[in-house]
Amino acid sequence: MRIALGLEYDGRGFCGWQSQARGCGVQDALELGLGAVAGSVVRVISAGRTDTGVHASAQVVHFDTDAVRPMNAWVRGTNTALPSGIATLWAKRVPDTFHARYSATARKYTYLLLNRTVRAGLARGRVGWFHRPLDVAVMQRAAALLVGTHDFSAFRSAECQAKSPVRELREIALERHGELIVIQFTANAYLHHMVRNLVGSLVYVGKGKHPVEWIEGVLASRDRSRAAPTFAPDGLYLSAVEYDSAWELPTTGRGLTLIEL
Amino acid sequence: MRIALGLEYDGRGFCGWQSQARGCGVQDALELGLGAVAGSVVRVISAGRTDTGVHASAQVVHFDTDAVRPMNAWVRGTNTALPSGIATLWAKRVPDTFHARYSATARKYTYLLLNRTVRAGLARGRVGWFHRPLDVAVMQRAAALLVGTHDFSAFRSAECQAKSPVRELREIALERHGELIVIQFTANAYLHHMVRNLVGSLVYVGKGKHPVEWIEGVLASRDRSRAAPTFAPDGLYLSAVEYDSAWELPTTGRGLTLIEL
Repeated sequence: MRIALGLEYDGRGFCGWQSQARGCGVQDALELGLGAVAGSVVRVISAGRTDTGVHASAQVVHFDTDAVRPMNAWVRGTNTALPSGIATLWAKRVPDTFHARYSATARKYTYLLLNRTVRAGLARGRVGWFHRPLDVAVMQRAAALLVGTHDFSAFRSAECQAKSPVRELREIALERHGELIVIQFTANAYLHHMVRNLVGSLVYVGKGKHPVEWIEGVLASRDRSRAAPTFAPDGLYLSAVEYDSAWELPTTGRGLTLIEL
Repeated sequence: MRIALGLEYDGRGFCGWQSQARGCGVQDALELGLGAVAGSVVRVISAGRTDTGVHASAQVVHFDTDAVRPMNAWVRGTNTALPSGIATLWAKRVPDTFHARYSATARKYTYLLLNRTVRAGLARGRVGWFHRPLDVAVMQRAAALLVGTHDFSAFRSAECQAKSPVRELREIALERHGELIVIQFTANAYLHHMVRNLVGSLVYVGKGKHPVEWIEGVLASRDRSRAAPTFAPDGLYLSAVEYDSAWELPTTGRGLTLIEL
């Protein structure tokens, strides 16, 4: 049978999502945890392969198994076996036609950018940082110019293995909450480093290095050397994966909560 | 001259605030960082001594030094020398009559309690956790019974060295934000483990183990054995220290926005 599973993780301490020979991937840890519950080898496929240091609040995977367990065992039993930085949130039996990666219709990534003169202490490893003032209104106008179906080659890493550089960027929501700037991207899919490269270029505009229209020229050029450097992974979260409601999955994007300390 | 300093830290990786022979206290790290900027030994005094694993978003300290440095050097220079989990936020020269501990008129502690069936993954180490449903309205009524000037012996650890068990608990604000329950305590000062013991007893009431009035009886009994066990340090933050406005300190409770995805 096929089972879909929702999970969250702190990307620190892992070498990214993907399984590695030395077993440092989030995937390696999850497969070990699920294997302990199944009593046999489990292989998972995820909706999105996050990089080293990138977090997830709503990753989705699927796996096939002959082991018959209550859904609660796949959640709480697995959590007992997982490292403390990973937790499964829900499990649901799905038809064999469901595929965590290919059935996904959209992915949302959220970038948390600490914008103040001093670096992060309490939130270190969980936010990106820029020390000079950023003009959020200007960043919002630049973000609007990126929305749409485009060739995003200018924001693609040299290691990207995607066949096509065209992606449909459906929305960029950008808001300031005190010292934090929250940037939420929704797209059908992403190129390698695309979100972190977009954040870097939005920061260039926000600090006044380039006018708003510059970002349109960078996009049109399809030239990676014209865009800004890649921003830190620390502030990046895979925060939702969307599927057709016919699959009846539990909510994967759980929303933002603002806490005033 | 005397300098006041604001700082934040992630309590994990430290054995609490206080200086230890093996140098594992937040105080030890801060004194090393300030000493590197001063070029001489610096000793600090804090507004509140947090326990192992307890965080601070707005700790305040003071120190005396003969080293003449721009205030910015005490902030950004010190941050260069500090471990990544600690950051100084501001520095200000103050009269010699200012004392970080004795001049403080109130301290605010915030407890973040994750209330859902599965344990924390992404937020591990930064929230407490309770797996069964909690009735926030009932917890609010119990919290109101604790406010006031009382003998808090029932919520005091056996190791507490305070001369008097009487404290003025001015306010408990308790709210649910999705999966998180946020509890904010404001008092003139606290006994050892007092906040974590109060949280434990509020959870007992919230899960229906005891009626609301039970907490009033525990308080009146002054008997530690009648209250609930101490809750985990993970969710506890020193989130504000209040001083007379005549000191003209930068805002210590900064309304820091922490975002849970």
